[in-house]
Amino acid sequence: MSDASRADRDCWIGFDLGGTKMMAAVLDGDMKPLGKERKKTKGHEGVEIVLERIIKTIRDALADAEAAPSRLAGIGVGCPGPLDLERGVVIDAPNLGWKNVPLKEVLEKAFDCPAVIANDVDAGVFGEYHFGAGKNARCVIGVFPGTGIGGGCVYEGKILRGRNRTCMEIGHVQVVPYGPLCACGQRGCLETVAGRMAIAAESAKAAFRGDAPHLMETAGADLANIRSGALASSIKAGDKVIERIVREAAGRIGVAVASVIHLLAPDVVVLGGGLVEAMPDLFVGSVAKSANKHVMASYVDSFRVVPCALGDDSTMLGAAAWARDVVSAAPRK
Amino acid sequence: MSDASRADRDCWIGFDLGGTKMMAAVLDGDMKPLGKERKKTKGHEGVEIVLERIIKTIRDALADAEAAPSRLAGIGVGCPGPLDLERGVVIDAPNLGWKNVPLKEVLEKAFDCPAVIANDVDAGVFGEYHFGAGKNARCVIGVFPGTGIGGGCVYEGKILRGRNRTCMEIGHVQVVPYGPLCACGQRGCLETVAGRMAIAAESAKAAFRGDAPHLMETAGADLANIRSGALASSIKAGDKVIERIVREAAGRIGVAVASVIHLLAPDVVVLGGGLVEAMPDLFVGSVAKSANKHVMASYVDSFRVVPCALGDDSTMLGAAAWARDVVSAAPRK
Repeated sequence: MSDASRADRDCWIGFDLGGTKMMAAVLDGDMKPLGKERKKTKGHEGVEIVLERIIKTIRDALADAEAAPSRLAGIGVGCPGPLDLERGVVIDAPNLGWKNVPLKEVLEKAFDCPAVIANDVDAGVFGEYHFGAGKNARCVIGVFPGTGIGGGCVYEGKILRGRNRTCMEIGHVQVVPYGPLCACGQRGCLETVAGRMAIAAESAKAAFRGDAPHLMETAGADLANIRSGALASSIKAGDKVIERIVREAAGRIGVAVASVIHLLAPDVVVLGGGLVEAMPDLFVGSVAKSANKHVMASYVDSFRVVPCALGDDSTMLGAAAWARDVVSAAPRK
Repeated sequence: MSDASRADRDCWIGFDLGGTKMMAAVLDGDMKPLGKERKKTKGHEGVEIVLERIIKTIRDALADAEAAPSRLAGIGVGCPGPLDLERGVVIDAPNLGWKNVPLKEVLEKAFDCPAVIANDVDAGVFGEYHFGAGKNARCVIGVFPGTGIGGGCVYEGKILRGRNRTCMEIGHVQVVPYGPLCACGQRGCLETVAGRMAIAAESAKAAFRGDAPHLMETAGADLANIRSGALASSIKAGDKVIERIVREAAGRIGVAVASVIHLLAPDVVVLGGGLVEAMPDLFVGSVAKSANKHVMASYVDSFRVVPCALGDDSTMLGAAAWARDVVSAAPRK
């Protein structure tokens, strides 16, 4: 497949820059995957080394695809935010130890092609819109419960966004007036009652008081150990109270989703992230039931609630498709 | 100005179809008003007669503008919903007594030009975006507290909407879990604690128990009489408790606006409707303060909260500008 002499720029890179790992895929103009590569991020090694590693990961993915770098039409990167989308700068990413890193410029220089950065959650929702569970829907909402609860929206083929920031911060929609304190400084945000830490804290209490023997045995009452997998196994093993805690947390997400449905009338709500992947039926079913219970009659069953179809690959693939759309729409220089 | 022989289609009609009155304006291609007309709607007289009256109102507005009907390039109508936007049908408008009225078809036949219908609130927000308080902003949210609390969003020059319905039902965002019963069947919707009926009921109780002597004297404790004007006069005359009730209701709207800011990151939030027009400073100030108090640090002061600039004309003017955008973008037949 390699053909360095060919001038056609027919390949796209989709890149997922995470705190733990980075992943690159090479896709052709029809968004068919040709090759990929992944490496550990190791943010503690410093900005320069990680930037080199990103470039190396892209080169290795191109090698895997047997595609010369000269075939690159563009690069899309899903990054943790906040970002300056116009200038392509990662403003602040504590997981990477990055502040004001001009990622777009670095990549454009290294590969002599346009680069586009997007919020990682937005890129993931775009991936599900383009390839996955929300394929070609007019309006797709993505909700990713984890330590925080991320959200994104693709509306008529475009990522909805703030002027120079991401939007769809569904984790910070207030669901309990004067509720628990949130990391953001507000009270009663969805995250405070339905994020992984809220679920873990409720579960730890239940385990500690003897109501969740399986969880107590496998994970104890330490929030650090009560992760999605431990919750899922404890439910499977028969800890009824843990099932109830997860169901009620998902129900709270359904209330916030109902508000989003009243505001944006999406066709599809895609759920992803570790909690959903560990307990897809329980989570998706509870969110769907609660959302339908909390919308006005005319919106009942006007939307589908579905699990992510692409799993870990959504951000990487979405970033490639988004880059293709943005670069193709831009006026040529 | 009249020139029936001229083939140029350079005039647009903006129409506001309300339950009480209907208004038409004639605008030129640069959206400069040339003439207008208004009539009482009188929905009780039946669909046929009201449709005739709509046509007559447009003809009278054209006469006022000294423009021949042959100059019409298109007609935009802001209607109460729900609507079938593609087919241009008013599905159900209780205020008019209408069910499944093919308004677009009727107008296109009568005037031999394209007609476009839009939700009245959406058209109003588009009017404020195009001509008024949210002029050319990237993302404008409109909030119109009244008996219900209507909402709309113009994002990058387009009205955000559901597939075949309006969206931005901010009045039905849940702000009080297990709160008061809403007309929509849900509990704790914003309308139930911040709509005119909620404010009127709180005020009637205060008046009845002797805490709002001015309101008691002018309006009594009958919800039907406690309208925006009566509330404004009672506050002016010194009824402190009424001021507090209005301020707190506006504060609740600010909480819902904060959620919308987390979701859509608007640049401008435009407030309109009878309550806001009667008490602009009190209302706008309270919503702005509360919204800023309830958003994450990075969103504080990232938006402006402003009163409507066009008042009663926003829907009529917005409908004309929207029709021009839609008709100009459509492929020619």
